[in-house]
Amino acid sequence: MSAVDFENVAVSTRVRLARNFSDYPFPNRLKSEESALEIVDLLSAQLKDVEDFKLHYMDTLEPEKAEFLKERNLISQALIDNKKYSAVLISSDRKISIMINEEDHIREQYFMGGFDLNHAYERISGIDDIISETIPFAYDKTLGYLTACPTNLGTGLRASVMLFLPALAQTDGMKAVVRDLKNAGLTARGAFGEGSSAEGHLFQISNEVTLGVSELKLLQAVEKAVCIVSAKELSERERLVEREGYTAFTDRILRAYGVLSNCFTIDFSQFMQLLADVKLGVAMGILDGSLQQLDVLLTEMRPANIDRMNGSPLSGAEKDLYRAEYVGRALHGMELLTESKRSKLSSER
Amino acid sequence: MSAVDFENVAVSTRVRLARNFSDYPFPNRLKSEESALEIVDLLSAQLKDVEDFKLHYMDTLEPEKAEFLKERNLISQALIDNKKYSAVLISSDRKISIMINEEDHIREQYFMGGFDLNHAYERISGIDDIISETIPFAYDKTLGYLTACPTNLGTGLRASVMLFLPALAQTDGMKAVVRDLKNAGLTARGAFGEGSSAEGHLFQISNEVTLGVSELKLLQAVEKAVCIVSAKELSERERLVEREGYTAFTDRILRAYGVLSNCFTIDFSQFMQLLADVKLGVAMGILDGSLQQLDVLLTEMRPANIDRMNGSPLSGAEKDLYRAEYVGRALHGMELLTESKRSKLSSER
Repeated sequence: MSAVDFENVAVSTRVRLARNFSDYPFPNRLKSEESALEIVDLLSAQLKDVEDFKLHYMDTLEPEKAEFLKERNLISQALIDNKKYSAVLISSDRKISIMINEEDHIREQYFMGGFDLNHAYERISGIDDIISETIPFAYDKTLGYLTACPTNLGTGLRASVMLFLPALAQTDGMKAVVRDLKNAGLTARGAFGEGSSAEGHLFQISNEVTLGVSELKLLQAVEKAVCIVSAKELSERERLVEREGYTAFTDRILRAYGVLSNCFTIDFSQFMQLLADVKLGVAMGILDGSLQQLDVLLTEMRPANIDRMNGSPLSGAEKDLYRAEYVGRALHGMELLTESKRSKLSSER
Repeated sequence: MSAVDFENVAVSTRVRLARNFSDYPFPNRLKSEESALEIVDLLSAQLKDVEDFKLHYMDTLEPEKAEFLKERNLISQALIDNKKYSAVLISSDRKISIMINEEDHIREQYFMGGFDLNHAYERISGIDDIISETIPFAYDKTLGYLTACPTNLGTGLRASVMLFLPALAQTDGMKAVVRDLKNAGLTARGAFGEGSSAEGHLFQISNEVTLGVSELKLLQAVEKAVCIVSAKELSERERLVEREGYTAFTDRILRAYGVLSNCFTIDFSQFMQLLADVKLGVAMGILDGSLQQLDVLLTEMRPANIDRMNGSPLSGAEKDLYRAEYVGRALHGMELLTESKRSKLSSER
């Protein structure tokens, strides 16, 4: 694979495994609360000394906290909906989450910034091995791991990489990408889950198929797709500048930065749009700073996280004010556009 | 008159007198270049020791310099068109200009920042008295001063005050203002001369009638109108905030500031629009700084002035880049929106 500047495209990597225990019926068939909570106890005892896990019973978790964990992709809506029986183990660095009694008995996930599928798989595989040592998984020699939904049958593995694709999204490039991925048994969807539109030009590439292919092959397929799509995105970015012209393109980026760093109120959707332009500017060297810095805002500025930072729930309008002030201060602190950077932009045209 | 905050409405004051000499035919009937230039000689000799005047013969003035003087309202297009015979005397502080052989033999003008019709009239009247001591004016006991165009007959006086009327312009208030002014023998027009639209929400209020009324009455009529219109504008600004709401209004101002202080390219028309919002923000206390500081940009950022500052002519696209960079640096230097100001805005909502 040729050298591709993944830093400016790949945002984060996630690998999750779906597992069920052979001694219990699937969560939707669990007869009593007791047997469900037995699984929770068993698992948390088992993992007690492995990582600095914290156990949250969904039943007693405040709705704001649940929303916050969902925004961070540590839990799913299905886990919340299932709250009578469900729980989650989360590592203190928030990289590992193990949802218990969601659709399957457990959904183990490793989440990290950047692009490293092998590392993510190794980490979550390590957890998986520890669990399997004492609690037998439902496994069929022909089919592999048994899951509640047939789409997860086999490896139970979903490898996902979140990509920032502003150029492909702004041109018509995404259509061809989505088609090619589908042909390769992969899928691209909006960053915020199935059916969500690609706010902030963020797309998650992951495997659709889990059955009849080894874990290694699945990881390789996603990795290869990420490489191809990233390279396409980078060349599309160059074309974007050529087509718009350096002046118009730079102006668009600088105006987005000007509005985002000075506005008095902003909703999440517009924040995402402007942040995408600012990130594109950073990726293209028009602004200083790093995408990683800016992606932190992407998480921080979601509604439940704002409530958490504020210490008490805010109305929608209050959140928009909070967001504008917070983002303005953060961007000024990042020094994305110093006087000397500005002069350099002018001299480079 | 009640206390009106003119600082936030009145931009500048101008008083001009149209005069002709009895011993020469009107400029359009001057038979030879010689007699026309005789007037120039006579006048410049007469005023040599009065002010630090500089004489420019329009015939030999570079077109760029002529355009520059026109942008500053020190000369008119008619003077440029008449360049074979015309000249101008300009004081070193650029407050006094005396156009020679424009439509009339002389057009004496005093121009100043702020609102002070009496001061402006006294200053230009002083010059007028000195000239009349040795060069007799064409004067009729019944009609008054004789002028080439009957609209200037009588006093030959035009008293103008430039007003910044963003609230009246954004609501429907201007229509009623224009009607009322017309009934009082006054007129309101766009800042850049007759027929020009009100770019940057700048309107010039001046007397239409010059005949049959004393200079004092004319000045008083304009002064009164300025007071009334300014008071209307100020109350309309309060209503503007009430109608838009503090948050939406503040957001609009801050976004205009953000774009204007960060854009990479901007044409004069959009610059004027955004500057008007920034000025409104300063006037309403949403931004720090002073309108006077910002109004300097209004003159500096006009095309011919940019060429002058650059030292050589720029293309239109180059001017737009120059403007964006210059305005950005100037606005950052003015510290209109510091971190502490921002915090204050949030706490005040």
